Amino acid sequence: MMEKLINLLKEKYEVIFKDISLLEQAFTHSSYVNEHRHLELTDNERLEFLGDAVLELIISDYLFHNFQELPEGKLTKLRATIVREDSLAMFAKDCQFDQFVRLGKGEENSNGRTRASLLCDLFEAFLGALFIDQGQVAAKTFIYQVIIPKIEAGAFSHEMDHKTALQEVLQKNGDILIEYSLINEEGPAHSRVFHVEVKAGGKVLGLGSGKSKKAAEQKAAEVALADLKKKSQR
Amino acid sequence: MMEKLINLLKEKYEVIFKDISLLEQAFTHSSYVNEHRHLELTDNERLEFLGDAVLELIISDYLFHNFQELPEGKLTKLRATIVREDSLAMFAKDCQFDQFVRLGKGEENSNGRTRASLLCDLFEAFLGALFIDQGQVAAKTFIYQVIIPKIEAGAFSHEMDHKTALQEVLQKNGDILIEYSLINEEGPAHSRVFHVEVKAGGKVLGLGSGKSKKAAEQKAAEVALADLKKKSQR
Repeated sequence: MMEKLINLLKEKYEVIFKDISLLEQAFTHSSYVNEHRHLELTDNERLEFLGDAVLELIISDYLFHNFQELPEGKLTKLRATIVREDSLAMFAKDCQFDQFVRLGKGEENSNGRTRASLLCDLFEAFLGALFIDQGQVAAKTFIYQVIIPKIEAGAFSHEMDHKTALQEVLQKNGDILIEYSLINEEGPAHSRVFHVEVKAGGKVLGLGSGKSKKAAEQKAAEVALADLKKKSQR
Repeated sequence: MMEKLINLLKEKYEVIFKDISLLEQAFTHSSYVNEHRHLELTDNERLEFLGDAVLELIISDYLFHNFQELPEGKLTKLRATIVREDSLAMFAKDCQFDQFVRLGKGEENSNGRTRASLLCDLFEAFLGALFIDQGQVAAKTFIYQVIIPKIEAGAFSHEMDHKTALQEVLQKNGDILIEYSLINEEGPAHSRVFHVEVKAGGKVLGLGSGKSKKAAEQKAAEVALADLKKKSQR
């Protein structure tokens, strides 16, 4: 089974471990250690401790540089969404890691192999092992293969405001100028309505209206995003 | 004031910023930005977001390698103690950072300069700026000057069990073999008492008794630590 994992990592991610025992440890759940005491194995929990911090820094660094408009509060919220249990369990499954983790019988019978908390810990433990064996650049390369494309494809857009989500979608292939302009405002002062258009690379992508300029901009971005999504599905 | 800070960083920590505006941003509280809108400054909150993750990884990596006996749960607890608000505020003061942060008048008048949360954020923002300007190795070097010696001097020993704390104190100058041996046990089976001695480098450092071997070992380590502390104060 370990051989199949080694091949998968090599072929899919160009990751080749120097110390295979580290990789084995990352894929060893405590329930397996407890049921095989004579083997004197070590479970993956300490690696998970380290991998958690590796992931946190690499994602933080990415968000810091790629969401320059976002204030600290929103960066923190977005980071939390990306590194939360459900998300990491999903990434573990994307990598087929669930097929390779060594579990005790009890854990296996109670569907541990599909449990989000177990898969999340497994994913972090793998990152910890990769960090120790190959260094931080390798861990970053792996994260940029597995997680960042999902962010750029909009997997976490529901957690962003529409303007940020639109920026993320438009800028994934490089910098592009996004402009919001007030094209009209109407109505009496106490119930004014603002109309805004959003342009990227000079092309109008959406129109939005609202009771403030900010609300109108959000609406315009939402309309533009919905339109882009429709086009990409054709 | 910025010049004084630049000199302090250079003389005390051999840190020389390439981009002084990053250093200025790290020392700019949002209250200062709000009171000087015409200057179009940026506060230190985004840098704090990044610095938090930088610190977390460097401390995690240190703990992972230097507390090899500690399970994940205890590593997590110890890390939380080191990076918590009070601790980071203390490190900020150790570095005299409190003297250089730029605050708004309201914040200054309500003693913001001494508030733990503000100093903690400041410390993290500085690490974020250092990480961007000089890279991760520089951030690590700084943390190894400011935080790690405190850990090794036992500042967080109260958060460790006695055996771990003793190990930390004894091994700060390199590896040393620490041995616990059962030297006697007595009493009837239902109220047995165990006597344990702890040796380091072949020298007996402490004796402890307890109702289990584990309890006796903890007691022996506690006695040894108290004795070492007394000797170091002479």
